[in-house]
Amino acid sequence: MVDNKGDATKLHLIMVGAELIHQQGFNNTGIAHILKKAEVAKGSFYFHFTDKEAFGLAVLDHYVERMKSIIQPIFMDDTLSAVDKLFAFHEKFLQIFTELNFSHGCLIGNLSQEMSDISPVFSKKISAILNSLTFAFQKVIEQGIANKEFNSTLEPVYSAAFLVDSWEGALLRMKVQKSAQPLENWFVFVKEILIKK
Amino acid sequence: MVDNKGDATKLHLIMVGAELIHQQGFNNTGIAHILKKAEVAKGSFYFHFTDKEAFGLAVLDHYVERMKSIIQPIFMDDTLSAVDKLFAFHEKFLQIFTELNFSHGCLIGNLSQEMSDISPVFSKKISAILNSLTFAFQKVIEQGIANKEFNSTLEPVYSAAFLVDSWEGALLRMKVQKSAQPLENWFVFVKEILIKK
Repeated sequence: MVDNKGDATKLHLIMVGAELIHQQGFNNTGIAHILKKAEVAKGSFYFHFTDKEAFGLAVLDHYVERMKSIIQPIFMDDTLSAVDKLFAFHEKFLQIFTELNFSHGCLIGNLSQEMSDISPVFSKKISAILNSLTFAFQKVIEQGIANKEFNSTLEPVYSAAFLVDSWEGALLRMKVQKSAQPLENWFVFVKEILIKK
Repeated sequence: MVDNKGDATKLHLIMVGAELIHQQGFNNTGIAHILKKAEVAKGSFYFHFTDKEAFGLAVLDHYVERMKSIIQPIFMDDTLSAVDKLFAFHEKFLQIFTELNFSHGCLIGNLSQEMSDISPVFSKKISAILNSLTFAFQKVIEQGIANKEFNSTLEPVYSAAFLVDSWEGALLRMKVQKSAQPLENWFVFVKEILIKK
């Protein structure tokens, strides 16, 4: 049975691991490094996680919960128009990445690139996460079409997938250029695609 | 002085390394693994490359030359319209990734994600490569505008950057889903953005 102290250690390990993996990749982050930075003993790590893969999946879950806690209050806000929701999403993540000096990128995109050819378990989980993010955008696009903010010929699910994919691509370029410009450019084209007459 | 055999060994190392790095990432690929697969001695590796970073940069150069040898004959073909060039680009890479079972992704995108926070040398090189790819697309977009195939209100350099970034994002999703669908969806929106009235 895991007591409160055990749960706190588990969360601490996940948070330290998330930071390291987000920064330098999953394969490039050894358990020894995580333990050292977290100041936690090896036995405690293996008490909470069967192996590094299980740990990585827990880190991914933790990251998705943080993403949800940012996106849901925006996308679920009934007082916002669809355009306002997309604008608020863009502004919020621009602020987050500006504070990180345009480093890190999106952990989901990073792990897509790094893990999807070498771990079917990661791949399946990341695919479900991307579908869920796409679904969140789809709902906003449907709202925008219903309220005549957006072009009615759009197919919400495909438009949403393109928005998510192009956002991940813009984050890649942001990381390389260390600049907000790719994200700003992304938003220009998002409006162009959705709002066009 | 490097003799022909030395040059052949160097190219062999680069080709084996390119395959491994493309497949499993730079940090995840040890020199020992490359040497074993290439059946080359350690001394020979260090005769040709000062360190693993220098090797990685040579692999990137090699990959860019391969990309150029695919893209230039299409984009420089004076008999093709701008739409035909983009269609031929899309079809060619779709074929390449289909043959790879939608694995690997783009080495430039992969290394953007993996290296741009941890190696300024890689980052600078990748940024220049992405700018050069963007410039190639920009020329095609300018042709399309001049020939009234594309919307004249487009700003070629920003449209080109968005095309490149969204293509890299589509390749990420392709790798996760192991499907052509994200690339097909990318091309639908490329046409939507460029050809819209």
